[in-house]
Amino acid sequence: MTTTDRPGTAALPMPDLSGTFPGPFPTSPHADRIAEHVAQWLHRFPLLGPSGARRTLCDIVAHGVARTFPTAEPDGLFLCADLFLWLTAFDDTFGEATAAGSPARLVRRIRTCVHLLADGEPPGGADPFDEALRDLLVRLRTRATAARYLRVTGCLRDVLFGMLWEAHHLAEPHHVTLHDYRAIRPHTVFVRTLIAMAEVVLRYDLPEEARNSRAVRQPESAVADLAGVLNDLGSYARESAKGVPDSLNLIPLIMSEQKCDVPGAYAAASHLGEEYAAAARRGIGSLATGGSALLAQHAQALESIACSYVWHIGHARYSKA
Amino acid sequence: MTTTDRPGTAALPMPDLSGTFPGPFPTSPHADRIAEHVAQWLHRFPLLGPSGARRTLCDIVAHGVARTFPTAEPDGLFLCADLFLWLTAFDDTFGEATAAGSPARLVRRIRTCVHLLADGEPPGGADPFDEALRDLLVRLRTRATAARYLRVTGCLRDVLFGMLWEAHHLAEPHHVTLHDYRAIRPHTVFVRTLIAMAEVVLRYDLPEEARNSRAVRQPESAVADLAGVLNDLGSYARESAKGVPDSLNLIPLIMSEQKCDVPGAYAAASHLGEEYAAAARRGIGSLATGGSALLAQHAQALESIACSYVWHIGHARYSKA
Repeated sequence: MTTTDRPGTAALPMPDLSGTFPGPFPTSPHADRIAEHVAQWLHRFPLLGPSGARRTLCDIVAHGVARTFPTAEPDGLFLCADLFLWLTAFDDTFGEATAAGSPARLVRRIRTCVHLLADGEPPGGADPFDEALRDLLVRLRTRATAARYLRVTGCLRDVLFGMLWEAHHLAEPHHVTLHDYRAIRPHTVFVRTLIAMAEVVLRYDLPEEARNSRAVRQPESAVADLAGVLNDLGSYARESAKGVPDSLNLIPLIMSEQKCDVPGAYAAASHLGEEYAAAARRGIGSLATGGSALLAQHAQALESIACSYVWHIGHARYSKA
Repeated sequence: MTTTDRPGTAALPMPDLSGTFPGPFPTSPHADRIAEHVAQWLHRFPLLGPSGARRTLCDIVAHGVARTFPTAEPDGLFLCADLFLWLTAFDDTFGEATAAGSPARLVRRIRTCVHLLADGEPPGGADPFDEALRDLLVRLRTRATAARYLRVTGCLRDVLFGMLWEAHHLAEPHHVTLHDYRAIRPHTVFVRTLIAMAEVVLRYDLPEEARNSRAVRQPESAVADLAGVLNDLGSYARESAKGVPDSLNLIPLIMSEQKCDVPGAYAAASHLGEEYAAAARRGIGSLATGGSALLAQHAQALESIACSYVWHIGHARYSKA
């Protein structure tokens, strides 16, 4: 474990990933083009006000996606970055604390998204989020095979459900167990969507038999769990500083289940993160060296997805508590 | 329009479908085998108590599915019947009025379903609904191509979201417009799931280009709208007799928007049903005669799906108000 100093908080234990995902991480030569593209896309679909938060978000998304798929060509990177931006902006705008006050309002907001995901006609009087989602789905359909399209749109539904689940439980976290939280977190941290996007962005198809094998599912789950822990460690201090009460986050859940303080919960979460990282590293290694070029490509994608989450928590969006 | 006498209610106008879907409708020679299978499956997964309601439900599902896909082979019919039964039992048990008292409880109940739909490991201590869903997904995966599997599981997520949407709005129907209701109803009446199941049960694939064409989408939408109207007309008297307040149904929504009484709303809904039936008939006709064998097969599936909903509302489950 390492420690990190953050403005306004004491040094807190963070996972030591120097043996599993040490960095520095490969990044796409197109990172600056992604940043330019994302800014233009947000100009076309004004999902966020013209603020510092918007610039910070564009920056983390562009440079994050550049690390998620460092070998991808620009069009795939643009699509992935726009999708990630949409999800983050939707969650920031309608999810989390906003939704806790009125889950019914979030249900209504999500309804038009579900309608578009289910191939419904675009609703009249669509707002920028609907318009932007429509743009994303058209581009996704153009780029992806039917199965890849359906896999990603299935993940997007799960993300939206995850936001609903969170909204219902922010006010009553005593209903949430660590087990439940771990099951939903891969959706709300978007990592399952990124894993599904790998085949779209990099244009490969896992054989169905392999997809459902333990050899593939185990590293996918480990990367998904790692992403959730890292994001929670990174965002807890930020959320606390914003004064969001009872934020659904691994740290307060561990504090409650293990009757410990914040540093104790950080230590436990960091340990968990190290375990997930080790499991991911092992599973990715086996997949990469199993003799199948397709599985090796998937292993490479899982590795860079994991790296992008490791990279994320060092970004200003998280360190600016 | 025709009228129908129902126990406890006056004669109410019902749509006249004698020119569009006149019946009698073709039915599968395997109808009795489906009924036997469904009873055995419910014995294995006790989703409902051993009551008259259970027998009625088995009967309508078995004979309904026999009319939905009259030319299908038994295995496909069994899978479709079990899936339809699961959806109906889940909705009867956890949705509707039960959920209105605690949408958060429904969200928690749905979470494990979403987990299974997203290829998650089966939760420990699974209940019959989780166990039965798992059985359905394993059989669906065995029978369906990847794209067909993903299309159906996307629809199942939309049904579950539709139940959540209903649960949030039963207590505040003033937030629901006819437009919103029409958009969600094809999911909650399961017709979109049946349309997706057609390719699984009858083993064909629409070309992707055709799937997204107006020629296919228009009759699909008309059949979906027709199914919703018919189900609402059939179930309104039944739900009213059960004393369910503010049931989310087309009839009270029309009464509220058009300031009319129950017979007036029935007349308006029946007229709408006749319009949807006419649109479905036109679209199905064009698709059937367009020169493509695959599109003709899809037209045939849409026709029999429509017929099954017409047949449904004459069944004892609806007439026993």
